[in-house]
Amino acid sequence: MHYLCGTPPPEYSLVLKNGKKIVLMVSEMESNRMSREVKKGIWVINPAQLNIHPRSTCTQWMIELLKQENLEAVDVPSSFPAGMVESLRQQKINVEIIKTAVCPRREIKTPEEIKNIQRSQRAAVAAMKGAIDQISAAKIDPTGKLMEGKTELTSEKVRATIHHILLDHECMARETIVAGGPCSADPHERGAGVLRAAEPIVLDIFPRSGKTGYWGDITRTVCRGPAPAALKKQYNAVKAAQAAQLKAVKASVWADSIHQLGADLMAARGFKTETINNIPQGFIHGTGHGVGLEIHEAPRVSATNHQKLAAGHVITIEPGLYYSDVGGVRIEDTIVVTPDGYHMLAPCAKTLEI
Amino acid sequence: MHYLCGTPPPEYSLVLKNGKKIVLMVSEMESNRMSREVKKGIWVINPAQLNIHPRSTCTQWMIELLKQENLEAVDVPSSFPAGMVESLRQQKINVEIIKTAVCPRREIKTPEEIKNIQRSQRAAVAAMKGAIDQISAAKIDPTGKLMEGKTELTSEKVRATIHHILLDHECMARETIVAGGPCSADPHERGAGVLRAAEPIVLDIFPRSGKTGYWGDITRTVCRGPAPAALKKQYNAVKAAQAAQLKAVKASVWADSIHQLGADLMAARGFKTETINNIPQGFIHGTGHGVGLEIHEAPRVSATNHQKLAAGHVITIEPGLYYSDVGGVRIEDTIVVTPDGYHMLAPCAKTLEI
Repeated sequence: MHYLCGTPPPEYSLVLKNGKKIVLMVSEMESNRMSREVKKGIWVINPAQLNIHPRSTCTQWMIELLKQENLEAVDVPSSFPAGMVESLRQQKINVEIIKTAVCPRREIKTPEEIKNIQRSQRAAVAAMKGAIDQISAAKIDPTGKLMEGKTELTSEKVRATIHHILLDHECMARETIVAGGPCSADPHERGAGVLRAAEPIVLDIFPRSGKTGYWGDITRTVCRGPAPAALKKQYNAVKAAQAAQLKAVKASVWADSIHQLGADLMAARGFKTETINNIPQGFIHGTGHGVGLEIHEAPRVSATNHQKLAAGHVITIEPGLYYSDVGGVRIEDTIVVTPDGYHMLAPCAKTLEI
Repeated sequence: MHYLCGTPPPEYSLVLKNGKKIVLMVSEMESNRMSREVKKGIWVINPAQLNIHPRSTCTQWMIELLKQENLEAVDVPSSFPAGMVESLRQQKINVEIIKTAVCPRREIKTPEEIKNIQRSQRAAVAAMKGAIDQISAAKIDPTGKLMEGKTELTSEKVRATIHHILLDHECMARETIVAGGPCSADPHERGAGVLRAAEPIVLDIFPRSGKTGYWGDITRTVCRGPAPAALKKQYNAVKAAQAAQLKAVKASVWADSIHQLGADLMAARGFKTETINNIPQGFIHGTGHGVGLEIHEAPRVSATNHQKLAAGHVITIEPGLYYSDVGGVRIEDTIVVTPDGYHMLAPCAKTLEI
């Protein structure tokens, strides 16, 4: 709905696409604001204009809207609320649930969308630099803890640094990952408590612009002080996999082949993917995902998505390796696919030891 | 799902409640983290444990999970994805869509939930004080603009102040409203540009805790320098309506009667609610809503919700008046309903002229 209208619609609203005509139905109270905010060509209407009681349900809105448009049938996406489908069918509306994307063109970003994602990605890079500066400035106490003066440097403090920098770029993030040591071996563990030297620290920052609604996404893995040999080897494998994957990206290449390339390269270096004692180890997630108005959207870059990449796809390339003993390493950038390769949205150094 | 499990589940997950047993199904990669994070008594399982292919769909997960639990039928909420209902029915699963709340007890907050909401509400009050301090410290230039030294004080700057303070309380907010002058007459207009003296400035702050996921919600309306007589009168009407509504709140009182009380009081003072030139004017929204893991949840305090308030309901009381000429005024607090009245979660002064 945000994509079609060019602005986030209120909680209680409907979007109907009838050929080229797009109608956004909202309450009378939201009607004027939405008329100002929607992109050109969108029709904003409210219940009063259809002579519906202002306190009628969204289902009643839909029925009246379909009547107004002379429609007896409607397609809804798979994610559409089941309760509303049932109510519409009870009212003899022919509802078909479509399993494909409502806006297939949404995968291909417009130049304006790419600029919006780039702004969020630049905010993410600024926050990443701030976080890395904070970690590299920390002293190491005799027990290996990272210290800021006399207080411990924790995941929470680094996360706060990241979030304040993002705010200065009009971006916000939830669930930012600052995972040190054993935590880092679990890809979505957010991290808590004191950070330590000679351990991997995974920093995964995915901010959303408060202005445009577009996301950015970046991950770096760092280690304060000299890294253990096993961690260095693991880091170099992930870095090499990402470099090979990036080099292979271009329009018309299969998304699943990009994933396989990274998986094969890391396996060839001896990094196995298997479950040991119920803990998945190795390259245990997909290579990447589309980024746009959602942080995870089409196209996926994974073993199961046999789809060709296309110019204008904005995707992450984020191979990773996770082991209970050494910890986790993930390196992620967000890029635009071009006819001949890719464009990096916001460059950011890749260095393990800081 | 968050409510049932006590933690936000990953994007791709299922929750099944079978009598008193609650099962959370997630991918193998998320399984260990979720086992650590869910509240006591929740069963976390992954596809490997049901011998399902790790890359099978969520619908396949559901079918296997129902088999495992010896269930041939399942109730789903109205908001459940229609596509999944269709797929399950094609697999001969008897799916019923229930229109009532899945967890009706969720309306009644536990003492722990109330503490969580209170923490977010205190963060909101701290941010409100910061915003009001910033506005009252501003100088007024000869044209009525608010100035911070030599630069204009804008909605954006006050919003940034609010968001930084919220972050220091481990809270985040989106769509914070700092709407001055004509903007304020539209209840959900976020506000932009320079703020001015002698005009209403509506400040609506609704942060969510990054830790607990619970929200807070507060609104104040202020005016830098002396307020025009019409604005003062309007402000006093809203303030009196809120005071009367708060005084009337207690368990067993009808939610709609609380709304009506405020509406009647403001109407009796001459403040009409009507649409003029397609612009709704007056008391054009409901009095309040429940607050919890969602910013807007049950119970609504509105003209259409004929439901008795109960001890443990956490609700907002936020009457408002909006006119194109004078601007908008809204005053909002978040409270807990008690057997004999209410408890204010975080007190905050109500003063128009600052």
